Amino acid sequence: MTEITFRSDMRVDYVQHTGSDEMVARAARVSTGSDLIENDKIKGLIRYLVRERHTSTLEHCTVTVRVEAPIFVAREWMRHRVQSFNEASARFSAMEPVFYVPDGNRPLVNAGSGAHPDLQHSDDDGQMWRGVNVAHQNVYWKAWAEYQWMRDAGIANEVARNVLPVGIYTQFYATANLNNWFKFLHLRDGNEGSPQYEIVEAANKVAGILEELYPVTYGVWAELNGRGGDD
Amino acid sequence: MTEITFRSDMRVDYVQHTGSDEMVARAARVSTGSDLIENDKIKGLIRYLVRERHTSTLEHCTVTVRVEAPIFVAREWMRHRVQSFNEASARFSAMEPVFYVPDGNRPLVNAGSGAHPDLQHSDDDGQMWRGVNVAHQNVYWKAWAEYQWMRDAGIANEVARNVLPVGIYTQFYATANLNNWFKFLHLRDGNEGSPQYEIVEAANKVAGILEELYPVTYGVWAELNGRGGDD
Amino acid sequence: MTEITFRSDMRVDYVQHTGSDEMVARAARVSTGSDLIENDKIKGLIRYLVRERHTSTLEHCTVTVRVEAPIFVAREWMRHRVQSFNEASARFSAMEPVFYVPDGNRPLVNAGSGAHPDLQHSDDDGQMWRGVNVAHQNVYWKAWAEYQWMRDAGIANEVARNVLPVGIYTQFYATANLNNWFKFLHLRDGNEGSPQYEIVEAANKVAGILEELYPVTYGVWAELNGRGGDD
Amino acid sequence: MTEITFRSDMRVDYVQHTGSDEMVARAARVSTGSDLIENDKIKGLIRYLVRERHTSTLEHCTVTVRVEAPIFVAREWMRHRVQSFNEASARFSAMEPVFYVPDGNRPLVNAGSGAHPDLQHSDDDGQMWRGVNVAHQNVYWKAWAEYQWMRDAGIANEVARNVLPVGIYTQFYATANLNNWFKFLHLRDGNEGSPQYEIVEAANKVAGILEELYPVTYGVWAELNGRGGDD
Repeated sequence: MTEITFRSDMRVDYVQHTGSDEMVARAARVSTGSDLIENDKIKGLIRYLVRERHTSTLEHCTVTVRVEAPIFVAREWMRHRVQSFNEASARFSAMEPVFYVPDGNRPLVNAGSGAHPDLQHSDDDGQMWRGVNVAHQNVYWKAWAEYQWMRDAGIANEVARNVLPVGIYTQFYATANLNNWFKFLHLRDGNEGSPQYEIVEAANKVAGILEELYPVTYGVWAELNGRGGDD
Repeated sequence: MTEITFRSDMRVDYVQHTGSDEMVARAARVSTGSDLIENDKIKGLIRYLVRERHTSTLEHCTVTVRVEAPIFVAREWMRHRVQSFNEASARFSAMEPVFYVPDGNRPLVNAGSGAHPDLQHSDDDGQMWRGVNVAHQNVYWKAWAEYQWMRDAGIANEVARNVLPVGIYTQFYATANLNNWFKFLHLRDGNEGSPQYEIVEAANKVAGILEELYPVTYGVWAELNGRGGDD
Repeated sequence: MTEITFRSDMRVDYVQHTGSDEMVARAARVSTGSDLIENDKIKGLIRYLVRERHTSTLEHCTVTVRVEAPIFVAREWMRHRVQSFNEASARFSAMEPVFYVPDGNRPLVNAGSGAHPDLQHSDDDGQMWRGVNVAHQNVYWKAWAEYQWMRDAGIANEVARNVLPVGIYTQFYATANLNNWFKFLHLRDGNEGSPQYEIVEAANKVAGILEELYPVTYGVWAELNGRGGDD
Repeated sequence: MTEITFRSDMRVDYVQHTGSDEMVARAARVSTGSDLIENDKIKGLIRYLVRERHTSTLEHCTVTVRVEAPIFVAREWMRHRVQSFNEASARFSAMEPVFYVPDGNRPLVNAGSGAHPDLQHSDDDGQMWRGVNVAHQNVYWKAWAEYQWMRDAGIANEVARNVLPVGIYTQFYATANLNNWFKFLHLRDGNEGSPQYEIVEAANKVAGILEELYPVTYGVWAELNGRGGDD
């Protein structure tokens, strides 16, 4: 019998990037490359650019990541239309039996309203968590069994997959420029609005990658947008 | 006990539109409105615009539709990034128990390869279809029961929904301009490539709406792109 | 001899639109149309949508305008990439001799810096204005004479137009959805940053059109963004 | 007196890029990086991707170039909305006196119609060319003199520049992904439609850069689209 893997993490791996803090400054100056900008002036210039919303200067820096996340996270992610995606196909190949289950850190109860979800832990959390896990696993096992049965019976992937829950993991490449990664963080890193717990985890992994690649620009953006910043 | 609805159709309803065949011609001329274009010249002008790919003239015509389709269709549809979407939220409200099952017209067997799916009916179709339906319904019932159980136990919508299969119906508004609806049809109406059966049905409903709203422009596009045309 | 027209105004004419305040609310609900939203609830819902940046609900409202403005304004305008444009061609047809000259309201002196222009009137304004007008007209007459000479000599439009100044008027259609018109206003209506005087005039004409078409949504947006609001 | 520079060339310099032929293949497979694709299979895979219009796989390769071209070329270029631009500002700084004049290779006469320009050399080409050059230089000298006069009189850059012809050179950074560079070439490299002579020169310089960076992908695209191909 096929083994099923249960995971609770969102994986975001760096694949490639272009640009740098210096490129942001060079783009602002439409630099020929010979007109070097002194290092100690770059930060001031970038602060000015981010504050005054000259965001086009951020668009020459692009970052590609590879994501492993459940379909329900991929669906929210791909609503960001100024990104480029390649996702593993459930038509051209079979899915892998890897499914999402909440771990103990994941708050399960909505203490807010429908329009303003405010997810909280409950006093009864341990028991709830066990119930939720059993419920998830029950459906996943059943869905996977029927998926396998249909594929064994010669049914096409694209039909058999109808029964797979949105908690199944998918993989995709995502490429965006720095301006659009910042817009992604605005909506998904958990500092504004009420994004879903799982995408917040993924967004913060993206933030960590951006901070490493573009420490000055990320730091300025974070500081100006109440994300702690570059102290 | 909750009743579950099983559906096989893709629903696409007209909501609103702007523009007309005449608007395409007026946009090409950057018309002031007083410089009327004679009706019998509009068709020739539109043919020229479509053939020469002056597609910007098609972008002032916008159409909004309301779609009811399974999540797996919505996912393919929303990969079209130059559309505007509003989808019913599975976080802010509960899902409805409406699920997709293939009907007898839906071919079930891939006679092609992974990269070039070629879905066909089989000799054994009736029996296959019964098996597929039972498999679908088995999972849907189980998933819906666990979803309900979790919601009754106080678990937030956004957690409970993890177990719902991609065959569950969702609803969304989609707005695009005529240029981008044509790009959608290129990839999804079944005349090119190998789009999935269910989205072909939806795309053809979009095509029917476009043909009614912009008979000359649609006719010219269809004719120039091997879709039968305006005979 | 050809007569030259000198203008100082930016013209923005309404062409067509789709959507309404009610459509914004309906899109948020993914409404079937039969589930009417009470009129007195629309405003509260729209305020919530705009404040929480559920901007996709604004994207089903589209507005087309026809603009007459100098090329230097058209260039700034067309940097907004989520709009659709059709502009009169200087290749396919000849240009009209209509040129921009600043009028007495247009401040002429930069009292700020390069990066933060702060245009002011000067004590010497009347005389400056006369000098500026003569300088503009001198070049426009010379450019138009050589343009005409080249066209008369059989030179193609697309070559002769090289000599025409960016102060010459052009015409274009622009279509955008309400979300993107608001982004345009953010950068161009003069309440933030330091946009150029002439595009501020045009942007405020766009704002007037939006306010008339979508009074509730425009009012809420204006109020939440320090534009005076919906009183 | 300021010296004026007259140029006839379009300059396109490579700035940076990301991706490679191998990245196109990896994106198609949503590769983890450990599952290497054999070199001799990459070309077949890429041919399949380009032919079947799986263009999303091309979007993880991005290229930035720096362009020096007249404003009339920049205007056509920036109509391509899925690119990122930073252009030297005529508001924040002064323009340089560098102007475009046609050289002897530039055909001057339209032997086609308005809608279908067909630029040709004429028997009288030498004399025409001299006339065109004098006409261009006459206007450029006059415009530059008045521009300088206004700036010396304390008029802001953003007002003085109104008189500068669209033949003046500007500089900009342009970043796009490979899919969108190919769309740019479709419309501008002179193999389809009737793009303007000067932008064809620039587009072919872009093509040369792409061919060097992504030899397999460019070769396949060129071959499948009648551009000579990868022989």
